[in-house]
Amino acid sequence: MIYIESKDNKLYKTIKKLKEKKYRIKEGKFILEGFRIIEEAVKAKIDIEYIIITEDNLSNLKEAEYLRDRSEDKIILISENLFISLSSTENPQGILAIAKFKNIEENLNGDFYVVCDKVQDPGNLGTIIRTAHAAGVDGIILTKGTVDIYNEKTIRSTMGSIFYIPIYYDDSKFTIIKKLKDKGVALVTTSLQESKNFFNENLKGKVMLAVGNEGNGISEELFNLADKKVKIPMPGGAESLNVAVASAIILFEKVRQNLM
Amino acid sequence: MIYIESKDNKLYKTIKKLKEKKYRIKEGKFILEGFRIIEEAVKAKIDIEYIIITEDNLSNLKEAEYLRDRSEDKIILISENLFISLSSTENPQGILAIAKFKNIEENLNGDFYVVCDKVQDPGNLGTIIRTAHAAGVDGIILTKGTVDIYNEKTIRSTMGSIFYIPIYYDDSKFTIIKKLKDKGVALVTTSLQESKNFFNENLKGKVMLAVGNEGNGISEELFNLADKKVKIPMPGGAESLNVAVASAIILFEKVRQNLM
Repeated sequence: MIYIESKDNKLYKTIKKLKEKKYRIKEGKFILEGFRIIEEAVKAKIDIEYIIITEDNLSNLKEAEYLRDRSEDKIILISENLFISLSSTENPQGILAIAKFKNIEENLNGDFYVVCDKVQDPGNLGTIIRTAHAAGVDGIILTKGTVDIYNEKTIRSTMGSIFYIPIYYDDSKFTIIKKLKDKGVALVTTSLQESKNFFNENLKGKVMLAVGNEGNGISEELFNLADKKVKIPMPGGAESLNVAVASAIILFEKVRQNLM
Repeated sequence: MIYIESKDNKLYKTIKKLKEKKYRIKEGKFILEGFRIIEEAVKAKIDIEYIIITEDNLSNLKEAEYLRDRSEDKIILISENLFISLSSTENPQGILAIAKFKNIEENLNGDFYVVCDKVQDPGNLGTIIRTAHAAGVDGIILTKGTVDIYNEKTIRSTMGSIFYIPIYYDDSKFTIIKKLKDKGVALVTTSLQESKNFFNENLKGKVMLAVGNEGNGISEELFNLADKKVKIPMPGGAESLNVAVASAIILFEKVRQNLM
C-alpha cells in the first residue's frame, strides 16, 4: 500500500496534474471518480494503474474484487483532505482511479457513426456518447475544437459507454470523414433551412450523423460536405433543441427505420 | 439607483436567501442570471422586481431596453465581490435579476403533456422542459419529489422555455394526472419489460408522457396508472438512456406521428 500524506508527494502532484487536459495527453492517462464508473472501467478491461482511496473508505472497499486482486503497490491510501483536492464531484465517494488511454486502431468499416463537431459542453458530449452507444454506432469522430473526452464530467455523463465505443480524432481537413464518405457512408447534418423532416429522409444503410457546437451549430466546411440535410420540426415555441437531444432524436429515428 | 456595498445590507441578505428553495417558495421569487435568460424573461413578460449589476457593467448595459425603461429604484448596483457571492455560474456576466413566480391557472384542456416523476437533476429537468416546449406540449406536471424548477441550473437549461410552458404541481394522490386521464388523455410510460417499441404504439391523440427518476425510473403507483407502456429498443450495448434523451425520443415520435 502506498501512503500519500503530503501535498509535496511526487505521485500526488502527478495525479493532480491529470485534472488538466494537456497533462492527460502528455501522460496518456486520465482520472476516474466513483464506484460505478470504476467498476465499469474494470469490466471493460481498461488498464487501471492506481486505485486511490481515503483511509476511512478502506474497510468498506476490501470486498471489491478489483481491490482484492490488486498488487498492494497499486493502491494509494490518502487523507480525506488531500482526496478532496483531487475530487471533482460535490459528494465524493472517496474513490478515484488512474486509468490509461485505450489505443484504438482505426476501423472505418462500420455503417453507423456520429461526428461531434466542436461540441463544447462536457455533459453534452458524454450524453451523446452514451446515446450513440445505445443506438449501436460503430464509432464516434471528434473534429478539432471538441471538448476533451477525458474531461471528468464527460466521462461521468457517458455512464461507462466511453469504454466501449471507438473514438477517433479527425484532423482539420476532415480526413476520416472523407474516408468514410468514400466508403459510401452518407454524411447527415441537421439544418434549420429548407430540408426534409428527419422522418422523411431515408436513414437506412450507411450513415454518419454530424452534430455541431452549442452556439454556432455545424461548421460551414463540414456542412458543405453533407450528403443529406434534415430538419427537426418544432411545433411548439422553442427556437432550438439541446445538441444531445437533437442527436438522440435522429439516432433513434435511424434505429426505428432499421427495425421497421 | 440602489447601491449595495456590504454583506449586512438587508436587501442583499434577502436576495442571497433566494438561492435556497424554501425561501423562493416563501417569497414567491427567484433569481435569473445572465443576459440571455433575462432578455427571454422580459420578452415573456415575467414580472422582474430588480436588476442587479456590477459597477463595471453599468456602462455596457445602458443600452439594454429593459434597463432604460426601468425606474431607478429597481436597479441595484453592487461590487464585483458581492456579485460573485450571489452568482452561480463559473463565468459570471455581471447581471442578475429577481423575478416573481408566475401564477398559472390550471388548464387541463390540452391534449399533450409531460409528467416528470421525481426527476432529480436540475439540468435534466431544464432540458426536458426545453424539449417539451419545442414539441408543443400544453403543460408539464411535476410529481412530489421532483427538483425545484426555480433552481438556477434548471432555469438555465430551459433556455427560456420555462417562461412559456404552464407547469403544475401534482399532489401525492396524482389528482391532476387522474383528472387528465378522466378527460381521455392516455398516460404513456416507458418500460424495459415486455412492451411495444415506441414507434409501434399509436401516440396520436391525447397523450401525457411520464418519465421518472434518474436512478429508479417511474414510481410504482404512477406506473400502475399507465394506459400505454412503450420501450426504446437499444441495439447497442448501453443499458439505459439519460432521462432527458429518452423523453425527447418519445416526444418527437409523437411529433412525427402527428405530422405523418
